[in-house]
Amino acid sequence: MARKTGSHAETTGPRVRAAALRLFAQSGYAAVSMRQIAAEVGMQAGALYTYTADKQTLLFDLMREHMADVLEAWAAQPQGGSPGERLEQFTRFHINHHLDRPEGVFLSYMELRNLTPKNFAEIEALRRSYESELEAILIAGQENGAFSVPDTRLATMALIAMLTGITQWYRDDGRLSRERVQKIYWNMVRRAVKG
Amino acid sequence: MARKTGSHAETTGPRVRAAALRLFAQSGYAAVSMRQIAAEVGMQAGALYTYTADKQTLLFDLMREHMADVLEAWAAQPQGGSPGERLEQFTRFHINHHLDRPEGVFLSYMELRNLTPKNFAEIEALRRSYESELEAILIAGQENGAFSVPDTRLATMALIAMLTGITQWYRDDGRLSRERVQKIYWNMVRRAVKG
Repeated sequence: MARKTGSHAETTGPRVRAAALRLFAQSGYAAVSMRQIAAEVGMQAGALYTYTADKQTLLFDLMREHMADVLEAWAAQPQGGSPGERLEQFTRFHINHHLDRPEGVFLSYMELRNLTPKNFAEIEALRRSYESELEAILIAGQENGAFSVPDTRLATMALIAMLTGITQWYRDDGRLSRERVQKIYWNMVRRAVKG
Repeated sequence: MARKTGSHAETTGPRVRAAALRLFAQSGYAAVSMRQIAAEVGMQAGALYTYTADKQTLLFDLMREHMADVLEAWAAQPQGGSPGERLEQFTRFHINHHLDRPEGVFLSYMELRNLTPKNFAEIEALRRSYESELEAILIAGQENGAFSVPDTRLATMALIAMLTGITQWYRDDGRLSRERVQKIYWNMVRRAVKG
């Protein structure tokens, strides 16, 4: 397999992943062929294998990138603050980050079924890491009396599902700004865990 | 097309839909052929057309049945009670009903993209009807001062996403009983809308 260097490889790799994401989100992983992905990028099917080992690797890379991306973006947020402040920060961050990536959210939920067991385990571990970031905030608030959460694990799952669900209906040209949605959801999140 | 009467047709129709639901949920609508569905039921591909006009009709029937089912089951629940009591009833009902139908939930979210515009509009209308049942409870509580909900439409979307999300991780043989999950989620729902 040829080793690619320089700007051609650097731009083609992301274009391949973007095309795969688009096609998988449209038709589902099982219905999309490597030939279709190559055609979408404007290359021969054979050339695609310079950029990825196979379709499973493409799916895994997309899902790993999606999780690595959110973990990295959250780590880059300002640190510190009370549990209440951190929870508000997480709420606003989670909404905004995922509204920018509706296809990634959709794929990451829908195509878990098509990962090999080894790949599934790795994606699940990344997902758990991200969930643990929220759970740590809930535990800190539970410990200092700011929150009252009977089961921090369930509260984590409940809040993430509630916030991620926004990607199913929100449109940037709709009746509500992101800021308004963040404010209304934060109001509900705050009260749901209040001590 | 032959008209089917009696018990043979009555049991084969549901078997065809059950097979289609299973296969669509496994591989995605676009990857499944009518031939595969027929094989799953143990019939010739041609015979399948006695039970359904085409694959789109099968998908539409499954999604319509899923929504009609939840609307009917909710309508059969005891009526009356305060907004708070009704909200607890809805919370427990929604969790239990959807935990019994994880494949239907998955399909109804995932395959909206594959409905024809006309079929999509009909499924969306049914979904709106169901959402309106919850929103009516929130509005009643808002009006009598029991709840404080800045935007009843958003609160509806938030609560449904939060409750439906349980189907993604809950297992009946896991660490928590349904009763315990219902109780913990009701505790969060109650506080999220409290006046």
